[in-house]
Amino acid sequence: MIIVLDKSATPEQIQQIASKLEESGYQAHPIYGVAKTVIGAVGVPDEEKPGLMEQFEALPFVEKVIIVMAPYKLAAKAYRPEGTVVRVADRVNIGGNHVCIMAGPCTVETREQTLATARAVKEAGAHMLRGGAYKPSTSPYSFQGLGVDGLKILAEARAETGLPVVTEVMDPRNVELVCRYADMLQIGTRNMQNYDLLREVGKTRHPVLLKRGMWARIDEWLMAAEYIMKGGNENVVLCERGIRTFETATRNTLDLSAVPLVKQESHLPVVVDPSQGTGKWSLVTAMSRAAVAAGADGLIIEVHPHPEQAWKDGAQSLTFENFRQLMAEVRAIANAMGKEM
Amino acid sequence: MIIVLDKSATPEQIQQIASKLEESGYQAHPIYGVAKTVIGAVGVPDEEKPGLMEQFEALPFVEKVIIVMAPYKLAAKAYRPEGTVVRVADRVNIGGNHVCIMAGPCTVETREQTLATARAVKEAGAHMLRGGAYKPSTSPYSFQGLGVDGLKILAEARAETGLPVVTEVMDPRNVELVCRYADMLQIGTRNMQNYDLLREVGKTRHPVLLKRGMWARIDEWLMAAEYIMKGGNENVVLCERGIRTFETATRNTLDLSAVPLVKQESHLPVVVDPSQGTGKWSLVTAMSRAAVAAGADGLIIEVHPHPEQAWKDGAQSLTFENFRQLMAEVRAIANAMGKEM
Amino acid sequence: MIIVLDKSATPEQIQQIASKLEESGYQAHPIYGVAKTVIGAVGVPDEEKPGLMEQFEALPFVEKVIIVMAPYKLAAKAYRPEGTVVRVADRVNIGGNHVCIMAGPCTVETREQTLATARAVKEAGAHMLRGGAYKPSTSPYSFQGLGVDGLKILAEARAETGLPVVTEVMDPRNVELVCRYADMLQIGTRNMQNYDLLREVGKTRHPVLLKRGMWARIDEWLMAAEYIMKGGNENVVLCERGIRTFETATRNTLDLSAVPLVKQESHLPVVVDPSQGTGKWSLVTAMSRAAVAAGADGLIIEVHPHPEQAWKDGAQSLTFENFRQLMAEVRAIANAMGKEM
Amino acid sequence: MIIVLDKSATPEQIQQIASKLEESGYQAHPIYGVAKTVIGAVGVPDEEKPGLMEQFEALPFVEKVIIVMAPYKLAAKAYRPEGTVVRVADRVNIGGNHVCIMAGPCTVETREQTLATARAVKEAGAHMLRGGAYKPSTSPYSFQGLGVDGLKILAEARAETGLPVVTEVMDPRNVELVCRYADMLQIGTRNMQNYDLLREVGKTRHPVLLKRGMWARIDEWLMAAEYIMKGGNENVVLCERGIRTFETATRNTLDLSAVPLVKQESHLPVVVDPSQGTGKWSLVTAMSRAAVAAGADGLIIEVHPHPEQAWKDGAQSLTFENFRQLMAEVRAIANAMGKEM
Repeated sequence: MIIVLDKSATPEQIQQIASKLEESGYQAHPIYGVAKTVIGAVGVPDEEKPGLMEQFEALPFVEKVIIVMAPYKLAAKAYRPEGTVVRVADRVNIGGNHVCIMAGPCTVETREQTLATARAVKEAGAHMLRGGAYKPSTSPYSFQGLGVDGLKILAEARAETGLPVVTEVMDPRNVELVCRYADMLQIGTRNMQNYDLLREVGKTRHPVLLKRGMWARIDEWLMAAEYIMKGGNENVVLCERGIRTFETATRNTLDLSAVPLVKQESHLPVVVDPSQGTGKWSLVTAMSRAAVAAGADGLIIEVHPHPEQAWKDGAQSLTFENFRQLMAEVRAIANAMGKEM
Repeated sequence: MIIVLDKSATPEQIQQIASKLEESGYQAHPIYGVAKTVIGAVGVPDEEKPGLMEQFEALPFVEKVIIVMAPYKLAAKAYRPEGTVVRVADRVNIGGNHVCIMAGPCTVETREQTLATARAVKEAGAHMLRGGAYKPSTSPYSFQGLGVDGLKILAEARAETGLPVVTEVMDPRNVELVCRYADMLQIGTRNMQNYDLLREVGKTRHPVLLKRGMWARIDEWLMAAEYIMKGGNENVVLCERGIRTFETATRNTLDLSAVPLVKQESHLPVVVDPSQGTGKWSLVTAMSRAAVAAGADGLIIEVHPHPEQAWKDGAQSLTFENFRQLMAEVRAIANAMGKEM
Repeated sequence: MIIVLDKSATPEQIQQIASKLEESGYQAHPIYGVAKTVIGAVGVPDEEKPGLMEQFEALPFVEKVIIVMAPYKLAAKAYRPEGTVVRVADRVNIGGNHVCIMAGPCTVETREQTLATARAVKEAGAHMLRGGAYKPSTSPYSFQGLGVDGLKILAEARAETGLPVVTEVMDPRNVELVCRYADMLQIGTRNMQNYDLLREVGKTRHPVLLKRGMWARIDEWLMAAEYIMKGGNENVVLCERGIRTFETATRNTLDLSAVPLVKQESHLPVVVDPSQGTGKWSLVTAMSRAAVAAGADGLIIEVHPHPEQAWKDGAQSLTFENFRQLMAEVRAIANAMGKEM
Repeated sequence: MIIVLDKSATPEQIQQIASKLEESGYQAHPIYGVAKTVIGAVGVPDEEKPGLMEQFEALPFVEKVIIVMAPYKLAAKAYRPEGTVVRVADRVNIGGNHVCIMAGPCTVETREQTLATARAVKEAGAHMLRGGAYKPSTSPYSFQGLGVDGLKILAEARAETGLPVVTEVMDPRNVELVCRYADMLQIGTRNMQNYDLLREVGKTRHPVLLKRGMWARIDEWLMAAEYIMKGGNENVVLCERGIRTFETATRNTLDLSAVPLVKQESHLPVVVDPSQGTGKWSLVTAMSRAAVAAGADGLIIEVHPHPEQAWKDGAQSLTFENFRQLMAEVRAIANAMGKEM
């Protein structure tokens, strides 16, 4: 922690800060410049005194306080420099030298639609099945998902195709139930800072797909992972799905720089959702190629037998044919990267 | 709903859309322009077929689909054109010709800190007491609130000062408990689209302070209110608390235009949180004056006996003295607006 | 400047940085922490070595470099702590205890429209006339302004009403010409970092209204003022006009927090443009009140005899009647602030 | 154009709009819905009446006006559906099946630095040389470029290596001068809506590299291209270089979705600047791969013999060795895309 003082700070005020630092277990190293005094605090990781930074900022003679240490520990690269491979259902790896493709409908609508999609994506080479049984809808009048019936359909599709299932859980009261049917829990973008939910999935040992909040900086996203990991569940996969910006031509702005950046900062695998990220099926294949070229460990793709009849997100869903084409193009990029797929 | 077709659309394709519209209960009105064909859909409120818009967008010959009707009904101005006054604890009104001041600590830390603050803000003229017992913290290592002990301290402060209490609820499992102690439930910015929580508070009849998501457009914020109201709880007060932008000099960008805009779009009262909105105590008073001048029905302000010792958000908390000054300045503005305070 | 080193930095690398700092005239103060080493650089204002910060960042063992000193000098509060009052045409003051109202058409369309508007705003109590002769239009097919003929019309309106004129200059080649006709030069939002233009207006002694770039942080805005002041022209008035965010309900997001923040950081007066800031005439009056309550030194307002016939920006222009109403409401707020208007 | 009326609109008001549309050469097609009336305007391209949209919005009974036609013509895909290949200096193509690499120093500092870099990037396989002689600096105290001396050094580097030169022009008064030395003119991000500059480069026939404004939506960027093309200069190459968002871990947020989107909307080639886009040398190679995988026609990369001694942007400059590595990795991706490089 570095505390920048106002020009006006008196020796007594500087001493006041030094004492407070020392009470908190830090050593204070003041540097007296021409125009400002700066105090470096050494000796205790910043995150152990979370209110401290703001307390200093509350002093009228303090200009600003700068945090030097990253606030995450378990999610940090240093915790496992070789990188984490998250294993799902004892048969699919996310991370390492492998590009993992999760595909399926935005929403489980019917048994037929889900099974048909599961078969098609399996045949095209996908490794996991995605599909929503609990749907976060902007409107309370929209379809909210089939709930437990949807989970059962997903489990049936898994039984038939062998594809492990990832599906969203929104309510901490449903975590146990969803664990019973699904192989991987998805935390949606709107719930990235739903701390009670994060704590609840942190109690399980199910792999978690943690989507980035559409408003979240990368450090905040890693802190959400930290919540889950602190509970003992280290099977976290990050998912970049676009952030909210002024651009309206796409539904979100897919921030692919987050991929190599997260790889530098963290040991956790990171996958990309180009369907949500762009909101337009005609951009999904290009952004899938780009995501893998940026170093992503996988993709999660919305596929529907008839996007023009989908109950949700038809505009960003691929047809089976388009998904097959995507797989071929992404495989070429994965190979150029020296990765398997 | 208006559907804009690509130049390439054939008469058959236009007919396909018209049929689909008619199956859904709309009448289709095509307009044939020189360069494009546009189909107006008439007769059914857009929100009753939520997937429909995206289904049309999934068609390759559709360029875009434009929604004309606002998606909210109960939150819309037309539902109660005279405006809503939310009554809290049978003694405080939010809305109408009155400026309601809620003040108190960011976080309930101790009985002493909370009671001292409650007395000070009461004396300065505040109408309600705020204070957090459950705290959403970016870091899992930070203080997470005193929980039920915090609620009890708030109830004691109310008993002594007569100030109704507003406090945050984060977990749907805690809604009933918080209702037992608090007079008004706060939904925090991170939970604006936590739909299970919204549904749960919608089942109560407690007044709700619904903070704007830091990433949320105004229509999405009103849709979150709609979730609560659809459950039967129409006692919703909106709270503008800043949105996330590229500007880093303030913690958030307080969007005061939202105040008159919400007044045009909705009948719900709207208050402003300049403490969260700016993150800097030295800006709080100016932005409080501005909020009331923009037409806000109230303010929610963080106050602490010793901001430089606060466990959370000291940087944006006012001292008692600064809060008294704020009250005087805001009262002058309220009076200039012809309002009581 | 503070340089945060990677854990891996060796004593030789630390020495390399210290030497480089000392060559540049700084003294290096290393602080050795448990996990990181931090080097404080003391003795020379940061801005004199602009490439230096990035050079350090280019070193693989440097994690980040933090600038402590504000980069602006002439625009900084410390340069003139009592605040600047900019005097226009020897009769209007911007700054101090006075709220200055500039009003007029977005664009000079005709002699009649401009004169009628000038008379109406004068009668309602405005202090200056605004109007565009050179118009920045997103489309090359749109009206680009009357040019010098527009300037002549503005000068005629000034001759009749006595209102000094503020008008935009876009091209450095036109600065001299615009100075001949106008009393104050406006730099539009798109040109806030058009450095050749800033340098050119810095050579004149004409007052300058410097609009904030819709993408600009406050420090960058003050640096644009610094460009003008460095040329010797200290008559700069800042104008907040909204920034670009994800919110689409308003044309821009008017950042009123910028008003008290600029007052803390700088001695320059700051006015607000609620017409551009919101893009909607129905929000202009509320945001004008809010701007003055936030502490703005003035307002710039678009007024048109017939907004529904305006060649540009009709949607955000007030009728004469609405402008009169605005003046009454804003005056009440100004008085509540203890200011004249 | 589609005009959505308020519920309250009377038949007379609807007629008023219809008449106004017809005066402007449109035919009006009203659609009477249950809750709203919508008027479709047919027959004249929207952009020919630019003020019209806002005039309708100025009417109190108009809720909103929606533009259906894209405002650009010359930049639109339909203008040249087969795509444009811009030829530079009679020897380098941008567009088509070729990935064009432009590389060189951010800033021309010295003859030695520039020549050494030109040789190194040539040897590594770059097709063009970049380098700034006129530099837009946030600070007036920073280095502003060598000006004409820098242009001469670039010309010398071209003479030796054969690499055509792209360099920025900021001032309309310098366009002719820069054309004398450079093969391609760069319009920087800050000048994307500097219309006098755009008009000036539109008068030349020099290829133009038009960077996206960091605040610009894609339609606005294409409109900036339209300004240049309207002047008769159709040799425009678009350059995505990152937009400004709330994320601070990168200097900008590189919006790679813009690449496939621009390819759908326009015939103009599009290249990507990952150096400016990320601001961090350690992310440049990953984002270069991603850009090419997204379909970019080229890259523009900052390279410096000694980034830790660069006068500007050292933090985002590659060493010669890193640039060679980048070329190898990007070539693999280009080949996987079936492109030459």
